[in-house]
Amino acid sequence: MINPESLALGTKRNTIMELADHGRRRAAIVGKENVFDFSIGNPSIPAPAEVQNAILDIMQNMDPLAVHSYTSTMGDPRTRAMVAADLNARFGCDAKAEELLLCCGAAPEVAAACKALTTPGAEILVFAPYFPEYRPYIEQAGALFRVVPADIPNFQLNFSALEEMLSPNTSAVIINNPNNPVGTIYSAETIEKLAALLEKKSAEFGHRIYIIADEPYRELAYDGAVVPFIPNIYPHTVVCYSYSKSLSLPGERLGYIYVPSAAEQGRDLYHAIIGAARAMGHVCAPSLMQLMLARCAHLQPDLATYDRNRRTLVEALTSYGYEMAKADGAFYLFLKAPGGDDRVFSQKAMEKDLLLMPGSDFGCPGYLRLSYCVSYDTVVRSLPLFRALIEE
Amino acid sequence: MINPESLALGTKRNTIMELADHGRRRAAIVGKENVFDFSIGNPSIPAPAEVQNAILDIMQNMDPLAVHSYTSTMGDPRTRAMVAADLNARFGCDAKAEELLLCCGAAPEVAAACKALTTPGAEILVFAPYFPEYRPYIEQAGALFRVVPADIPNFQLNFSALEEMLSPNTSAVIINNPNNPVGTIYSAETIEKLAALLEKKSAEFGHRIYIIADEPYRELAYDGAVVPFIPNIYPHTVVCYSYSKSLSLPGERLGYIYVPSAAEQGRDLYHAIIGAARAMGHVCAPSLMQLMLARCAHLQPDLATYDRNRRTLVEALTSYGYEMAKADGAFYLFLKAPGGDDRVFSQKAMEKDLLLMPGSDFGCPGYLRLSYCVSYDTVVRSLPLFRALIEE
Repeated sequence: MINPESLALGTKRNTIMELADHGRRRAAIVGKENVFDFSIGNPSIPAPAEVQNAILDIMQNMDPLAVHSYTSTMGDPRTRAMVAADLNARFGCDAKAEELLLCCGAAPEVAAACKALTTPGAEILVFAPYFPEYRPYIEQAGALFRVVPADIPNFQLNFSALEEMLSPNTSAVIINNPNNPVGTIYSAETIEKLAALLEKKSAEFGHRIYIIADEPYRELAYDGAVVPFIPNIYPHTVVCYSYSKSLSLPGERLGYIYVPSAAEQGRDLYHAIIGAARAMGHVCAPSLMQLMLARCAHLQPDLATYDRNRRTLVEALTSYGYEMAKADGAFYLFLKAPGGDDRVFSQKAMEKDLLLMPGSDFGCPGYLRLSYCVSYDTVVRSLPLFRALIEE
Repeated sequence: MINPESLALGTKRNTIMELADHGRRRAAIVGKENVFDFSIGNPSIPAPAEVQNAILDIMQNMDPLAVHSYTSTMGDPRTRAMVAADLNARFGCDAKAEELLLCCGAAPEVAAACKALTTPGAEILVFAPYFPEYRPYIEQAGALFRVVPADIPNFQLNFSALEEMLSPNTSAVIINNPNNPVGTIYSAETIEKLAALLEKKSAEFGHRIYIIADEPYRELAYDGAVVPFIPNIYPHTVVCYSYSKSLSLPGERLGYIYVPSAAEQGRDLYHAIIGAARAMGHVCAPSLMQLMLARCAHLQPDLATYDRNRRTLVEALTSYGYEMAKADGAFYLFLKAPGGDDRVFSQKAMEKDLLLMPGSDFGCPGYLRLSYCVSYDTVVRSLPLFRALIEE
């Protein structure tokens, strides 16, 4: 009696794993430096020295029993207070420790938020192109996964399609800002327009439609771009944050959920998320990392490395004739596939040991995701390959 | 549209939290040393020095990018190979890295195993007294939670009740060995009898009934007691292990799932568990801890501290007239409540700042769980209170 959906999800080879396997095989043959792997969103700048020092100091000077014990389900109160203080200092909000839940990264946070917002018949909307794991999170919760078509070529939000798709069954919409896979930022204006529409529709349907704000890339913004803090615009928001990218700790599984008390039924929603997380086996976020975070929550990433890659790629690729949306966030570019077919182009690129993710995997065929969290040397030496590919 | 089950689960005050709150309030008044908190299963011996040294060495000498990056979903291959080698050396089995999945502790492992073994109408059986979180894990999976009544007073397995309850809908039974809350060990004989019954019923119903073996206490055995390795007796077993107790790392969220390929549909089940875990937001186990484990998987806990507490309590409490099941595993005693009502007795004990968990919370009224993972001083100074309580 094996669950067929779980089996399908566990056996389906996804493109990113196939590309990674190809990369490893080719690296063994042509050398690692000759495989240009733009497929994975693994940070390429190390964790800040303060993070390393904090971990060492905790390990050397604190009682191991205190370091490695269970914390409360919600997380260490001092760490939560520091995270709240950091949010308040940067966004002028009024976050409190008791509105935060420390979790093992954004993935279980979004999964728990979806579950907490699912009643029979509920629909949760995502915007194409979207992070592909949203689908299993939403379906696991028992809600209907619905995709708002992409806003091409600007990749903001497709409001006309959204307005048609919002229904009395809509429980929440997921916003990923800055966006993976596009690398664009939804502006304050865009979020304000979304808030106004959700406000109107919530009144019309007689129940609140929430935003689930998936924000692991919030600190990755370039050219002075500002990433709006969504609860300041629409308080009915569950913020799902991760330190994977901002502190370069993706493997350590550390993040938080923030549910402002100003959200409609905000306290109930906070507790429902705790309950949903518990039922999925959430006990606490890793305790050593929680202690580190109490000292490091205020740190900002050094974006110069990513920004140099970004500028070099955007300038060169544009000059070769590639088209892409404005990319001032995260560490992605979303290229229009020359020739129109993203899978064909990804395959052609792979033959040159250049690895790009087809947009089809993000619900947006005809585009390619390029992750520029790689070494600058890889960027520079990849440029002739990009040129050759578009000239073919 | 907030999920009412999630809300109920997230708001329900559980007894252990109430006791912990009481303990904190009283500690502020009478002093921490005068609160005798036997309510929580948090290890009281520190992580082995090798664990501390491994973490420090990794932090000081490895590239931070390599330390903190995503591992594969299944976990670092070298760590899994070391865990497999450790299992093979200790249990004479033939575990392989590709049969293991590293996870964030036993809680999400059991939750994922339940989901992977749930099809419409499925029932999953637990034995009273049981770890209370099994219920939300099973219900979250969509299966029916069914409790096999306790085998009083020996607290092995109630086979006559089990045989009646096994049905064509039974997908799995959860075994927790050594047992929380009883502190007893199911012997090889008990597991062999269970295996024979499940074999017979699987044949009768035409589908395999699996064991989910929740084993965070596997290494905590005293008086030379042997904890049988269930897959050696019944290969159709999902082992859910955690290093929380054996390495005293409960806050770090590190464990593994082992699905022997010899299990019926073993490879499908392994992949279904990966899929189930993914849908709940499992990305990887904490990466620094995975690297530590590659060096420390073979370590065994120093049980002398727990054993001294255990012997002292069993001897003294028995002499005062308390009755309890044989307690040669984990770090729990399960006392028959003097007077018969566990909640009343727990309340009376609380008035003396002695904190015990009512058995009702584990599906077994009339008993009390005593966690002896405390300091020896706490044990010794608590004895007069136990004596006074039973004399009242």
